Amino acid sequence: MSSNPWFVCNLRVRYQETDQMGVVYHANYLNWFELGRTEFIREMGVPYKNLEEKNLLLPVVDAELHFKQPARYDDVVKIYVKVNKFSSFRIKFEIQIRRSAGLKEVHMNRGMLQNHESPIGQLLVEGNTQHVWINKEWKPVRLDREAPEVYHILMNLKRE
Amino acid sequence: MSSNPWFVCNLRVRYQETDQMGVVYHANYLNWFELGRTEFIREMGVPYKNLEEKNLLLPVVDAELHFKQPARYDDVVKIYVKVNKFSSFRIKFEIQIRRSAGLKEVHMNRGMLQNHESPIGQLLVEGNTQHVWINKEWKPVRLDREAPEVYHILMNLKRE
Amino acid sequence: MSSNPWFVCNLRVRYQETDQMGVVYHANYLNWFELGRTEFIREMGVPYKNLEEKNLLLPVVDAELHFKQPARYDDVVKIYVKVNKFSSFRIKFEIQIRRSAGLKEVHMNRGMLQNHESPIGQLLVEGNTQHVWINKEWKPVRLDREAPEVYHILMNLKRE
Amino acid sequence: MSSNPWFVCNLRVRYQETDQMGVVYHANYLNWFELGRTEFIREMGVPYKNLEEKNLLLPVVDAELHFKQPARYDDVVKIYVKVNKFSSFRIKFEIQIRRSAGLKEVHMNRGMLQNHESPIGQLLVEGNTQHVWINKEWKPVRLDREAPEVYHILMNLKRE
Repeated sequence: MSSNPWFVCNLRVRYQETDQMGVVYHANYLNWFELGRTEFIREMGVPYKNLEEKNLLLPVVDAELHFKQPARYDDVVKIYVKVNKFSSFRIKFEIQIRRSAGLKEVHMNRGMLQNHESPIGQLLVEGNTQHVWINKEWKPVRLDREAPEVYHILMNLKRE
Repeated sequence: MSSNPWFVCNLRVRYQETDQMGVVYHANYLNWFELGRTEFIREMGVPYKNLEEKNLLLPVVDAELHFKQPARYDDVVKIYVKVNKFSSFRIKFEIQIRRSAGLKEVHMNRGMLQNHESPIGQLLVEGNTQHVWINKEWKPVRLDREAPEVYHILMNLKRE
Repeated sequence: MSSNPWFVCNLRVRYQETDQMGVVYHANYLNWFELGRTEFIREMGVPYKNLEEKNLLLPVVDAELHFKQPARYDDVVKIYVKVNKFSSFRIKFEIQIRRSAGLKEVHMNRGMLQNHESPIGQLLVEGNTQHVWINKEWKPVRLDREAPEVYHILMNLKRE
Repeated sequence: MSSNPWFVCNLRVRYQETDQMGVVYHANYLNWFELGRTEFIREMGVPYKNLEEKNLLLPVVDAELHFKQPARYDDVVKIYVKVNKFSSFRIKFEIQIRRSAGLKEVHMNRGMLQNHESPIGQLLVEGNTQHVWINKEWKPVRLDREAPEVYHILMNLKRE
């Protein structure tokens, strides 16, 4: 699945996200990882809000973060997201946070990259998150049965 | 109701609550106001969690904050709370955030002050919040009908 | 100054900003108030980041919030900001948070409204914040002396 | 180092930390991990605040989180922390978040466990964080040279 395409979207760092070290407080990156995933699946035509209305939740079960450089107040950062593993039960995303300042911008502000394109800009944080499909009673469900249309969208992405 | 007693509880400032100005980010005080109210009504024998389980919510409808001095990382601050107005429909709290460092501590870490006792320590933020009783369908309810035992606890406080 | 123009910008509600009541946690609006002010002064050509680099800080000294309706996850809300009072020492902003869903959108996503135009959409929260100009030693400064170019930009806005 | 002792401290879940799934928003655990580390080194006699005053920062470079069960509003959770690896350049902490409700409490609210004692209570989240010692110019420093007294405290812990 290494040939899966990357999705990219932009975000401006909020004052509230900084701490007295003068950089972004590290727990915020986990929040940004989620914003990236949310915009990615919105781009696929599946707003997360609609999933919840169908009684489908997608909590994080594992997360890994590697902090390379700090983001700073008012930076515009790019969130890159791609699907790493996918089945009826689980989904794993690979995520990178990059700073694009000073780059001749070649990537769009928001959208799917071509299959062969790689993330650009200074790498700030990279990591991944793994998720399981559950219902509101917090029980595991099979995505292909509960929401086959969502399953097929994500499956087709995989096969590209 | 000016003779209503103050409740006090303590809180240590978290790193995440600071910003790059080197002080506590101002929106956090609104969160601390809530922590103070929560501990106050817990002290009255009414955990907010139990209210929600009875289908009672108490959202904020008005808030006012006056910022005097900033709190800083690792400070131990005192949250003082008292009831200002109370009826079957509404409740208003007066709140003060103070820094006790350097004080010969005369107030307890947590509990109701005597009626005549005043808050002590350097005043950081003072304000008030007003609330209405609603149910989970977001409709106003009368506290004396929906939860008379809670109504009486708060009413007795008023008459003290 | 009631004829001062409104600035508007958009924001999408983050999952992290919701609470278990199923709506946006109330302290976040104070954060959004700041995002509105930041984008407003950026629009004036004065990124707040640049002010800090000139040793100018603009902390909040008073804030007032009136909560009318809750914002919900994934809503696109509009933040409206205008200057209410302005001098060398202080500045006061009036702020409204509105939900534009279902409206035939007549306002832009971001920019200054015409002088006669009013905010549109369902009013969620309205309020105001007052600020003083200080330096990094936390001492009051006169804006017209410390940053006359910023003073003139804001003064001209006032006279329009 | 598996025989290193665990430190434990308590925390009550804040309303602001919940999200509309009715549980604690996942990024907050990374914040709690930090609260646990901070209280651990305070217990060692080294408030993190004092380290910063000595121009020493300890940013997170890697973090791993495994989410087992969600914490809920008003839960009292126990944060368990121990040192996993330690040198002049780096330190790694192992962390567990557990819910103690319903347990006959055998562990203290705060303090070092005996070497042979294990964390108790329902496991909610476990993970680890790795850190490097740097100065405020964001350059790596050797802890044994910059703060030998802190180095020895942590080293002695290791040898126990």
